[in-house]
Amino acid sequence: METTRIVFSGSGGQGVITAAIVLAEAAVLHQNLNAVQTQSYGPEARGGATRADVVLSQEPIRYPKVIHPNILVSLTQEAYNKFAAIIRPGGLLLVDSRFVHTARRVDARQVALPMHENVMQEIGKPVVFNICMLGALTHLTKVLQPEAIVQALRSRVPGEFVEMNEKALNLGARLADQAA
Amino acid sequence: METTRIVFSGSGGQGVITAAIVLAEAAVLHQNLNAVQTQSYGPEARGGATRADVVLSQEPIRYPKVIHPNILVSLTQEAYNKFAAIIRPGGLLLVDSRFVHTARRVDARQVALPMHENVMQEIGKPVVFNICMLGALTHLTKVLQPEAIVQALRSRVPGEFVEMNEKALNLGARLADQAA
Repeated sequence: METTRIVFSGSGGQGVITAAIVLAEAAVLHQNLNAVQTQSYGPEARGGATRADVVLSQEPIRYPKVIHPNILVSLTQEAYNKFAAIIRPGGLLLVDSRFVHTARRVDARQVALPMHENVMQEIGKPVVFNICMLGALTHLTKVLQPEAIVQALRSRVPGEFVEMNEKALNLGARLADQAA
Repeated sequence: METTRIVFSGSGGQGVITAAIVLAEAAVLHQNLNAVQTQSYGPEARGGATRADVVLSQEPIRYPKVIHPNILVSLTQEAYNKFAAIIRPGGLLLVDSRFVHTARRVDARQVALPMHENVMQEIGKPVVFNICMLGALTHLTKVLQPEAIVQALRSRVPGEFVEMNEKALNLGARLADQAA
């Protein structure tokens, strides 16, 4: 596997940072990769888009920040407007079709999925929106196996919520499958 | 304020990463600072100590990793053994007296507080151990005002848990006060 650089972006409360942490933990604990996971907060964080970066590699990771991600996730229009331009050519740009309406022309594969809508319809708990997104992401990119995410969730999430999280993960994979 | 570099260390499940995120959010949203918050996972993360770094500054932050922290928190003996040597001369090394027994000689102020014991006795929920630690930390260092932490908690924690978190924060401050 080549080094993979991922940026998750959205607004506070969408679980962007948690998604990044779950992905990093899954990569390290269950796929034997190295990972660095970063949040940068600056003046733009006050009232702006939340961003969490993950770098995954088989090699030690020397530079922890992401300049041009292979994978960019944007869960709000504001985050999309701010970060779409940094996608690495040939990368994947995953957005939620409810929250992101205006698409720019970028040199990347753009996939818009109704993740939030389906989470609300099928599970009814917005808290797993981010996990649904991870399900779609792993299905679209094969960066990690879904089973690694499931294992990371099992060690983080209280027992009674594991099933709901797995359901959200599978929902994301199904949406990605339908879009492919 | 000079740039402050903080390392939180412990084992998975002690809430080390969450503590770092809460501190960073408090600094940015309520004290007008810049912050970078990082987790690095390498081979040592598999079965080793969890570590989360925070850099706080009034200036833009160019290097997000911490080499020598002004403030080091170690919540397990393993984390202490691994990281005590990196403390910046004159810094603060805060440990939990239940989990860390062996003290090394370091060129820093070492404070051992019975945080876990008191959280279990007075609140009975280990989940707020990390918040008690933040209460002690802010009291010992004045790096942030406790009110900034409270505000960050209010925007992260579900309503019914805010009071418990505030209680843990105050407990930490009280323990630090007794030790001073």
